[in-house]
Amino acid sequence: MTKHFKKLVGPLISLFFLLNMTSTGYAETTVSAEVGFIFNTLLFLICGFLVMFMAAGFAMLEAGMVTSKSVSVICAKNIGLFSIAGIMFWMVGYNLAYGIPEGGYIGSFTPWSDSSAVDTGYSDGSDWYFQMVFCATTVSIVSGTMAERIKLWPFFLFAAILSGVIYPIVMGWQWGGGWLAAAGFSDFAGSTLVHSTGGAAALAGAIIIGPRLGRFTKSGAPAPLKPFAASSIPLVTIGIFILWLGWFGFNGGSQLAMGTADDAIAVSTIFINTFLAGAGGVMAAALVTRLGFGKTDVVQMLNGCIGGLVAITAEPLMPSPLAAILIGAVGGIIVVYGTKFLFAMKIDDVVGAVPAHLFAGIWGTLAVPITNPDTSFGTQLLGVISINAFVFIVAYIVWSIMKATVGIRLSKEGETKGTDVTETGVIAYAIRD
Amino acid sequence: MTKHFKKLVGPLISLFFLLNMTSTGYAETTVSAEVGFIFNTLLFLICGFLVMFMAAGFAMLEAGMVTSKSVSVICAKNIGLFSIAGIMFWMVGYNLAYGIPEGGYIGSFTPWSDSSAVDTGYSDGSDWYFQMVFCATTVSIVSGTMAERIKLWPFFLFAAILSGVIYPIVMGWQWGGGWLAAAGFSDFAGSTLVHSTGGAAALAGAIIIGPRLGRFTKSGAPAPLKPFAASSIPLVTIGIFILWLGWFGFNGGSQLAMGTADDAIAVSTIFINTFLAGAGGVMAAALVTRLGFGKTDVVQMLNGCIGGLVAITAEPLMPSPLAAILIGAVGGIIVVYGTKFLFAMKIDDVVGAVPAHLFAGIWGTLAVPITNPDTSFGTQLLGVISINAFVFIVAYIVWSIMKATVGIRLSKEGETKGTDVTETGVIAYAIRD
Amino acid sequence: MTKHFKKLVGPLISLFFLLNMTSTGYAETTVSAEVGFIFNTLLFLICGFLVMFMAAGFAMLEAGMVTSKSVSVICAKNIGLFSIAGIMFWMVGYNLAYGIPEGGYIGSFTPWSDSSAVDTGYSDGSDWYFQMVFCATTVSIVSGTMAERIKLWPFFLFAAILSGVIYPIVMGWQWGGGWLAAAGFSDFAGSTLVHSTGGAAALAGAIIIGPRLGRFTKSGAPAPLKPFAASSIPLVTIGIFILWLGWFGFNGGSQLAMGTADDAIAVSTIFINTFLAGAGGVMAAALVTRLGFGKTDVVQMLNGCIGGLVAITAEPLMPSPLAAILIGAVGGIIVVYGTKFLFAMKIDDVVGAVPAHLFAGIWGTLAVPITNPDTSFGTQLLGVISINAFVFIVAYIVWSIMKATVGIRLSKEGETKGTDVTETGVIAYAIRD
Repeated sequence: MTKHFKKLVGPLISLFFLLNMTSTGYAETTVSAEVGFIFNTLLFLICGFLVMFMAAGFAMLEAGMVTSKSVSVICAKNIGLFSIAGIMFWMVGYNLAYGIPEGGYIGSFTPWSDSSAVDTGYSDGSDWYFQMVFCATTVSIVSGTMAERIKLWPFFLFAAILSGVIYPIVMGWQWGGGWLAAAGFSDFAGSTLVHSTGGAAALAGAIIIGPRLGRFTKSGAPAPLKPFAASSIPLVTIGIFILWLGWFGFNGGSQLAMGTADDAIAVSTIFINTFLAGAGGVMAAALVTRLGFGKTDVVQMLNGCIGGLVAITAEPLMPSPLAAILIGAVGGIIVVYGTKFLFAMKIDDVVGAVPAHLFAGIWGTLAVPITNPDTSFGTQLLGVISINAFVFIVAYIVWSIMKATVGIRLSKEGETKGTDVTETGVIAYAIRD
Repeated sequence: MTKHFKKLVGPLISLFFLLNMTSTGYAETTVSAEVGFIFNTLLFLICGFLVMFMAAGFAMLEAGMVTSKSVSVICAKNIGLFSIAGIMFWMVGYNLAYGIPEGGYIGSFTPWSDSSAVDTGYSDGSDWYFQMVFCATTVSIVSGTMAERIKLWPFFLFAAILSGVIYPIVMGWQWGGGWLAAAGFSDFAGSTLVHSTGGAAALAGAIIIGPRLGRFTKSGAPAPLKPFAASSIPLVTIGIFILWLGWFGFNGGSQLAMGTADDAIAVSTIFINTFLAGAGGVMAAALVTRLGFGKTDVVQMLNGCIGGLVAITAEPLMPSPLAAILIGAVGGIIVVYGTKFLFAMKIDDVVGAVPAHLFAGIWGTLAVPITNPDTSFGTQLLGVISINAFVFIVAYIVWSIMKATVGIRLSKEGETKGTDVTETGVIAYAIRD
Repeated sequence: MTKHFKKLVGPLISLFFLLNMTSTGYAETTVSAEVGFIFNTLLFLICGFLVMFMAAGFAMLEAGMVTSKSVSVICAKNIGLFSIAGIMFWMVGYNLAYGIPEGGYIGSFTPWSDSSAVDTGYSDGSDWYFQMVFCATTVSIVSGTMAERIKLWPFFLFAAILSGVIYPIVMGWQWGGGWLAAAGFSDFAGSTLVHSTGGAAALAGAIIIGPRLGRFTKSGAPAPLKPFAASSIPLVTIGIFILWLGWFGFNGGSQLAMGTADDAIAVSTIFINTFLAGAGGVMAAALVTRLGFGKTDVVQMLNGCIGGLVAITAEPLMPSPLAAILIGAVGGIIVVYGTKFLFAMKIDDVVGAVPAHLFAGIWGTLAVPITNPDTSFGTQLLGVISINAFVFIVAYIVWSIMKATVGIRLSKEGETKGTDVTETGVIAYAIRD
């Protein structure tokens, strides 16, 4: 169901759940409206701060994956984009998404303002907070792919456009009750809306900006890896654990309600499936790299976790535990081979965000009908194509214009010195034994 | 309102909110006393663990900002001070603050004991836990400023005095319903009580202990930066993200109640303003350093976030989103110029805690009347001056006595070797390619 | 009380609490069954995600404690074991534990499936999630001890056996209402069931696999420390803070209910005692190392925190604040001397997990009767001996069989190169100034 739809006819939906999921034995809910209001708000706030913390996860994942001469700037990018996305989502984003007419294409360019009222069933502010961190997550996905050669402020400009305009438009199509929701598309927590959107914007950028100097050899043989070795695997690891933690908020909070026993059961199921899909992604990547390439690649295990999590995000409620493990495992395998595919295409995605978010997001969205009988493959495909095409094309145009005007790439000299020296003047590590 | 006041006449206050903030449409609350009790306790526990985790944030922020020969000791200081503060706040602090007579100056030197009862409206233990982590936060602020030259155990002694006596006294003046509360001072979550207190104690210490060897040149020209380069920017970054996360608990929990829809709405508003003020601080520091000094200083962006968060802490409920961004932005700018000011004064604040916590805390407290019509600039100034003067003078005296007796500074030889070798015998990093 | 018992006769227990802990003044609870259901589920979900995050804490603690040539593999082990444990606990573990007959020895080898119903009082799925992260924690304890010389996949195999069979069996004995629960053993949140189980399995493994090459000299004199120096103390530190945070979920959630004011008070008390025991462990280790050995050992402070936390875990509800500090302090001292004891025995426990989890767990479990009059020293001793003996012997046999068949130790050449090069082909750090 769309968030918008739920907002409008929440009570009807509660009734629907009572008719279809009476496992608790409660014939009808006995929770008073105000207690339900508090529970729902609490869900948004708790899940919101978990998703907010994913910003730290992305920052550490990316800081660990780049080379040590680009770590300070990746930190600056992550805290900056998060700030920009939040401000933009207040200034235009929220109403551009939720101000959309039923079945429509775009909302209004007005700032969000609090309109909490008894019949919404939750604090409007808590919903803004929860939706805002989703918006910021979308932008976070982009920052790693183009690392080590993009200029800082042009990236910030793109972050403002993505968070203020591009993401809110596609968000409105579905969660705002726009044309895709009307068409029957289903994306519970954003495999496509959030993750593919971020991944598609990143892919467009990576193509336009080109690879890092010396990343690919002309002969097609892989360049020596050492100059591009990840600076810190433990930072990548803590980043992934933080993201996994945050994902419970991401998917669990997308139930949008905690004020009935049935909602509480649903959130629990979502937690379980979210956990198991991540686990499936980790172990699938471990097995595939060990059996296929000789060594158990820790980076692919970590990114495989993300692939599994992204895959389950489109439908974390309906799958059985086994289905969740398998959906996640396929996500993990997609990350491994997607990474190789991009490398073969000489597209330089520094942190592997495109395979993990775009490719696994497509898989997860198309897999929804396997476990959710109310959806169809055709409609899912429609959503995947329309959103990814829209985002990729618009992002491609925006990056192209920016390249032709303000410029997006550092000078060769600046890139060789490293973004840290060139852009922020602060070296990332000063460690002496 | 003071925490003490609320404790005593909570029901009256709920009524006040119902009269003034009826946006939910609930004429009066329908939440039963026991359900409200659980919600309120849950708020303290959740917000409490978020604030507790700020200890990790300070530890990482400081571990990343010091040079690599002082990292182990800064870790020891942070986990030690947190332990000491908690024990002291149980042993004397809580009752020294909350045992204060109405309008008075000091409470009693007795250990806290649980007195949960139905009419308090929440578990007394959850309140102790929540207040304790505030106390520990105050002490955390001090540890970074004097890093790299202070002896470990004298610092622990000061931590005990600050957490057991100094902080509880000023806490009682306001949140315990003491003379400042009676005078009409307003400090919602502690811009002055927590942050300025920590900052003022740190400033007194920095003046008395003096700068690190070689930090300032006699001519006034800046010393070469390299010997004092921050050891790890990604650790600083994760520290800031953890602090930002914790701040939702810090400010949100200071609503002190979650048992009505109006309280839930208030906590949501506080989350939003806390987020936006941090964002404002980040981007203001980014713009100011880029436009003013050529490069976008990542350290100032990160510390600017703290400046923004500290600034909003005195009044996170009343500002509009735009006001929150602006209040935070000024906080961020204060951090940038405050850092330069301290450097010019040859005061060596290793992590920039004085600008971020003391200076931005003064700003935030004085800015309250801009958005809260129930406060006055005069009363706010009274609170700022009385608390900062009291803390600075007492801390100055305590540091002076300690300097004259047990000694607070390492020998020149010990400092040159680094605190890690001298004090704990454990080098922080043993990384070989 | 056992978790199983509570599940069956929850209402009776609530009555018991009402008779014995009427500090709130509520004669009987006024919370409706459905609201209680939501609160209880919320407790499991919140505490569950806190415990889940402990996986990140163990990963960082271990990544920081090993030498820099084994960091990538320790990261792979930690994310892999967490994934394996979760899958195994779904596939067999949960029902092996909770499917046990009353007073019996073992449950059934069947996958968990959701059976939420109104009379359970909470979402069955939230309970699975909460119990699963306990299972994963048990396995996390093992991974550090045998680091730097164990092969990756044999470790994963052991992780599957420990999480799928060994841990669930002892869990069933007590929390499933098996023979130990019937005998009157008491272990609130798992000092023995979780921590000693993990520690005993690690000890068996460490004995069988033997120490790292060159770790102990033949003469008995300590080997030069430098080749075995911990790679990153700040990573250990953030790991400990994350574990401390997670422990509030670990112990707090083990109250298993949040649906009455009395439960809310109990959870608050548990938070306080958990905090104070950790603080006691930190400061006891600081004092003992400073007074006994000259320098304040930061590693012992950090591990002492774990020792304190493990010690309070068997009974975090009944102790007074002072008792909690002292129980934790003894735990911290046990860590310091336990580490020395293992070193003298030439058992190479890379991260000190055996002293912190096994030894402190024994202490904590035996200390329960000091504050809980419903328990006896004899019964506690019975539980400690039976569980630790069972786990140690079974683990010893499993490790021995694995050693004789698949092999568990890297070749000398592989160990000298380091596990990162040998097993995953990804170096952990590539940091250049």
